[in-house]
Amino acid sequence: MDTLKVALLGCGNVGSQVARILLEDADDLAARVGARLELAGIAVRNIDSPREVDLPRHLFTTDAETLVKGKDIVIELMGGIEPARSLILRAIEGGSTVVTGNKALIATHGQQLYAKAHEAGVRLAYEAAVAGAIPILRPIRESLSGDRITRVLGIVNGTTNYILDQMDSTGAQFADALKAAQALGYAEADPTADIEGLDAAAKGAILAGLSFHTDFNLDDVYCEGITKVTADDIAAAKDASMVIKLLAIAEKLITEDGTEGISVRVHPTLLPRTHPLAAVHGAFNAVFVEADNAGQLMFYGQGAGGAPTASAVLGDVVSAARALVAGGPWRLEDTKAEIPALPLSAVTTSYCIGLDVADQPGVLARIAQIFASHGVSIETMRQTIHTEPAAAALAAERPAAELRIVTHRGPEAALAATVEDIRALDVVNSVISVLRVEGV
Amino acid sequence: MDTLKVALLGCGNVGSQVARILLEDADDLAARVGARLELAGIAVRNIDSPREVDLPRHLFTTDAETLVKGKDIVIELMGGIEPARSLILRAIEGGSTVVTGNKALIATHGQQLYAKAHEAGVRLAYEAAVAGAIPILRPIRESLSGDRITRVLGIVNGTTNYILDQMDSTGAQFADALKAAQALGYAEADPTADIEGLDAAAKGAILAGLSFHTDFNLDDVYCEGITKVTADDIAAAKDASMVIKLLAIAEKLITEDGTEGISVRVHPTLLPRTHPLAAVHGAFNAVFVEADNAGQLMFYGQGAGGAPTASAVLGDVVSAARALVAGGPWRLEDTKAEIPALPLSAVTTSYCIGLDVADQPGVLARIAQIFASHGVSIETMRQTIHTEPAAAALAAERPAAELRIVTHRGPEAALAATVEDIRALDVVNSVISVLRVEGV
Repeated sequence: MDTLKVALLGCGNVGSQVARILLEDADDLAARVGARLELAGIAVRNIDSPREVDLPRHLFTTDAETLVKGKDIVIELMGGIEPARSLILRAIEGGSTVVTGNKALIATHGQQLYAKAHEAGVRLAYEAAVAGAIPILRPIRESLSGDRITRVLGIVNGTTNYILDQMDSTGAQFADALKAAQALGYAEADPTADIEGLDAAAKGAILAGLSFHTDFNLDDVYCEGITKVTADDIAAAKDASMVIKLLAIAEKLITEDGTEGISVRVHPTLLPRTHPLAAVHGAFNAVFVEADNAGQLMFYGQGAGGAPTASAVLGDVVSAARALVAGGPWRLEDTKAEIPALPLSAVTTSYCIGLDVADQPGVLARIAQIFASHGVSIETMRQTIHTEPAAAALAAERPAAELRIVTHRGPEAALAATVEDIRALDVVNSVISVLRVEGV
Repeated sequence: MDTLKVALLGCGNVGSQVARILLEDADDLAARVGARLELAGIAVRNIDSPREVDLPRHLFTTDAETLVKGKDIVIELMGGIEPARSLILRAIEGGSTVVTGNKALIATHGQQLYAKAHEAGVRLAYEAAVAGAIPILRPIRESLSGDRITRVLGIVNGTTNYILDQMDSTGAQFADALKAAQALGYAEADPTADIEGLDAAAKGAILAGLSFHTDFNLDDVYCEGITKVTADDIAAAKDASMVIKLLAIAEKLITEDGTEGISVRVHPTLLPRTHPLAAVHGAFNAVFVEADNAGQLMFYGQGAGGAPTASAVLGDVVSAARALVAGGPWRLEDTKAEIPALPLSAVTTSYCIGLDVADQPGVLARIAQIFASHGVSIETMRQTIHTEPAAAALAAERPAAELRIVTHRGPEAALAATVEDIRALDVVNSVISVLRVEGV
């Protein structure tokens, strides 16, 4: 039986699990591939760093450049842009198959890397970069190859889903739910990339590229995190049988001037509790796909974690290794479509607007008038008086009420302009929240 | 650009949608494949039968045997065993790639057909036979090829899921929910294959084969339908925050004597409402997979219907056509494992037992004693008195009570023996229901 030489770059959370599986399951993997996968070495920054998995010391090296030379398969799990990018380019030039789980790199330099791999006639596989352990790449690229995807909604960040799920089940405020997530290891000490939606935006760009056969990068993605979502927003959503999820959305649109394009965006979103994505709890991820013929599909699983992500990496490794053993040409890549990314203003959506207003006659009429002037129609309006007139008089404040208004679908630009005009009204104390609604 | 000749056998619900897509989307498909897919003909029993889709009359023929000759790809969507089996064998012998959505055929003659296809060096693809539109074949065969699946739980029959979901949301009895399903076209006039679990059993056998790299057939599957599930069972489940689903279950087990094997079974199952499968409503299907490293995954979508199933068929057609254009050898199939199917008695499970018992002192003790004698421990026991003593005296009956007992996990054989002994007790009027519990 032949042997395929494998180089592993990086030995963190995921890398150490990949090394473990390659060593522990060597016989099984050999039977599935038709050749032994020999782990030739593991490139790390510091050989003596503590690791979660006990691995033979002789495998470690700090010389990644030498390690990638002459390997059949190079697995890159270092994360970050450099030196990952240079090492992958070097591996491609050397004719190696490359498997990566590096979403930041694929979201920013994917296009260049695919082109180089195509030129060199080698494969670049990146299932683990899309949604962790969830197999989404092959279903979209192959199973749906005879269909047309129209929209993708993804819960692609476990940290934010855990926080929002906690807020939903316990009524906690954002800051407390974040602390709980940090205590449990679901959120990093510096949680910015997660809670500001940047991680989700990178995955959204990759998902959009996969679904619509075009390359998108981070700059094409409108991005809004969950830091402004309050316990009140969650409670109001609950009252309306809705749930708030941070979604990465990619959808095909035709703008008013007839341009076809793709909107890619990440923002907190209200979803009906009956929507399949509403049942995605804790740190789990899911990708919901709508296609012309297949209808609605959903793929659910762990979006992060050492062993789950390692499973996706190994799936790519085994598939690539089988193809190397079979000696055939790479499967043809999809023809690329030329379809532009659209700005947020091109989107049609529905808003749920929370307002703190003066509780006095004529307020509702003035607000409704602004909606009408922008051609936006109101679906529901709920009012809660939250300062008793008597109490307000004592505190020398005017009595206030809270309004929650859900609009019908309308152009994002008209909705945004409506909110700005409402904010300027003297009877409006503040715009408490603006959330977009999907799936209704 | 080259042309690939395609023969379509059958033009029902799914076949007519496949023909429509092949004709309507010809340019798109050609761009994705790198060759035109030419629909050379459609074999039907009666050319003048009414069809859902308007198709050019010259494509129809009643001579299927002649049609399959010399085609690059043969799509079989006739259903049933013969003549589908003979025509597929003829296509394989002629060197054609075969795509089928025929679950009955794959579940009973799959093994023979794979062997013939392997011998002839042609591909046999059957994604649509597993779970309709849900892409499950490639995720399991490729994405999880570096992992080990331990258990698969599938809602693989839309009719029974619709009926159970109706019973759950409206409190309806089985017979009424069935009638509603028939009125909406979700159930056939003769619903036997669905409600007795036979359709789910065929898909369970295919799913088990796919997940555990072994061939199973219908005889290996324990099968119990949903006809005995009552509104009371559903109500009791609801009280306990559970839901009843018809599941196809395939799991790897080690028996007491150390044999490793696979249990494949279909039966109504109690699941916690927090389980992802509990959120699968209406006629939707889903397959929940547990793997060593990936953890829990779920694949959700439409399990039936013309256009959704056609999407899965076209996915197979495009993948196969791409491979024909690339001219490479077929990807290596998995090595087959030799792992036996286990009888139901080898399974460890938990029972929820509903009993109608006499409401008199000592009854609970006698029942508990029987559980103890079989080594089965009780997790919870709930009692509802459903005949008032006074009313019973008037009707000259003894007062009765209803018990719902949930056991801890135990060997199926011990649980079944316990139920038989309880049934024989003079203080037990009847065993109202026996349901297995999963996912807790």
